[in-house]
Amino acid sequence: MRFLVPFDVREPKTRLAAVLDESERHSFSRAMCADVLTAICSAGHEIELLATEPVGYDTVDPDPLTVAFEDQASRITTIVDDRPLTEAVNARLDEAADPLGIVMADMPLTRPETIDRLTSSGTAVTIAPGLGGGTNALVVRHSSFTVDYHHGSFQKHRRLAAQRDLSIDVVDSFRLAVDVDEPSDLVEVLLHGEGVAESWLREAGFRVETGGNRLTVTRSTNHH
Amino acid sequence: MRFLVPFDVREPKTRLAAVLDESERHSFSRAMCADVLTAICSAGHEIELLATEPVGYDTVDPDPLTVAFEDQASRITTIVDDRPLTEAVNARLDEAADPLGIVMADMPLTRPETIDRLTSSGTAVTIAPGLGGGTNALVVRHSSFTVDYHHGSFQKHRRLAAQRDLSIDVVDSFRLAVDVDEPSDLVEVLLHGEGVAESWLREAGFRVETGGNRLTVTRSTNHH
Repeated sequence: MRFLVPFDVREPKTRLAAVLDESERHSFSRAMCADVLTAICSAGHEIELLATEPVGYDTVDPDPLTVAFEDQASRITTIVDDRPLTEAVNARLDEAADPLGIVMADMPLTRPETIDRLTSSGTAVTIAPGLGGGTNALVVRHSSFTVDYHHGSFQKHRRLAAQRDLSIDVVDSFRLAVDVDEPSDLVEVLLHGEGVAESWLREAGFRVETGGNRLTVTRSTNHH
Repeated sequence: MRFLVPFDVREPKTRLAAVLDESERHSFSRAMCADVLTAICSAGHEIELLATEPVGYDTVDPDPLTVAFEDQASRITTIVDDRPLTEAVNARLDEAADPLGIVMADMPLTRPETIDRLTSSGTAVTIAPGLGGGTNALVVRHSSFTVDYHHGSFQKHRRLAAQRDLSIDVVDSFRLAVDVDEPSDLVEVLLHGEGVAESWLREAGFRVETGGNRLTVTRSTNHH
């Protein structure tokens, strides 16, 4: 199947500003994106990375996104589209003749078998909700479906499928529910991640902090 | 299969104090527990409700927990054990000759098919992580496993299974990952709940608040 992975190159992960500086947010978002690309390719699919501007290179050596591109050269193409997310994705849906998967780039817990759960449903729309009512992953098999991200897109997408009489399946996945937006999400990457985003956080000094009711993260200041 | 549902009658859901007063926390915790009991019974299992003290009745009419007991009278028994959670659960595990499921009472997104995913694995231990590294659901099929709740129990349980050479399966479920501890969890109940906890929140005036990046809840003051 063809997958679209929207990736914000310009100002990624602004809500992590309390714990990561701007250059770190760029690096970390690339690491998360690399994990998503690797999971989708390992599940046997092709990817169009839908980037807001050319993805370039990172000063981190090795740059995880470059490594993912090299490892999966035949499976990944990059498209630059600086329109807002909803518009850019709908333009691709509009052109799509075949089923199209759409997975956000900030979901580093995604595994190949998580992708299998998304693609195995035969419904017109398959959707995986994110924490707080977002839509973290979609498979669209019908041309009359369009996306509308932001502000409770999960409910919007479910309503839209109902209005257009499209069958819908909701994938019940923790790994697809956790998109990394806020500092409190980082602990999930440390606990459940197995890819480069998890290693990136450890190398940046992040550790699981026990003691509270839910675990949080702590960052050591002397991690270099 | 026999399921244990630990239920804190004494001081339930203290972290919801910012949005619910004490009597509301009692009522809401009973509604959530009722949803969990209904899901497990509907999946065809028997329940021991492991309560910290006699569950009594609620002034809410109809009291959802009483309704669940009446609907599933033949399937639910109540045991009162005022020891700390870990100790009380280990005492039951110690006596158990057959597989035992353990599902927390604050997971109102649990459905019968979610329970099926837990029980269908044949491993010695089946575990569903909660947000922040907790253990929200377990199925234990081997007598050498013991629980150790609080402070990162998911990692502890995984380590323990490895140390004792027990096979383990991790269930990737959003519905089992969401335990309701904090005000930010309530939006998931409004978005994805279908039982009495969801209706309880609506009747108490809670609504989904759009506008932020992740949805939150708002409560109207004139809901009576």
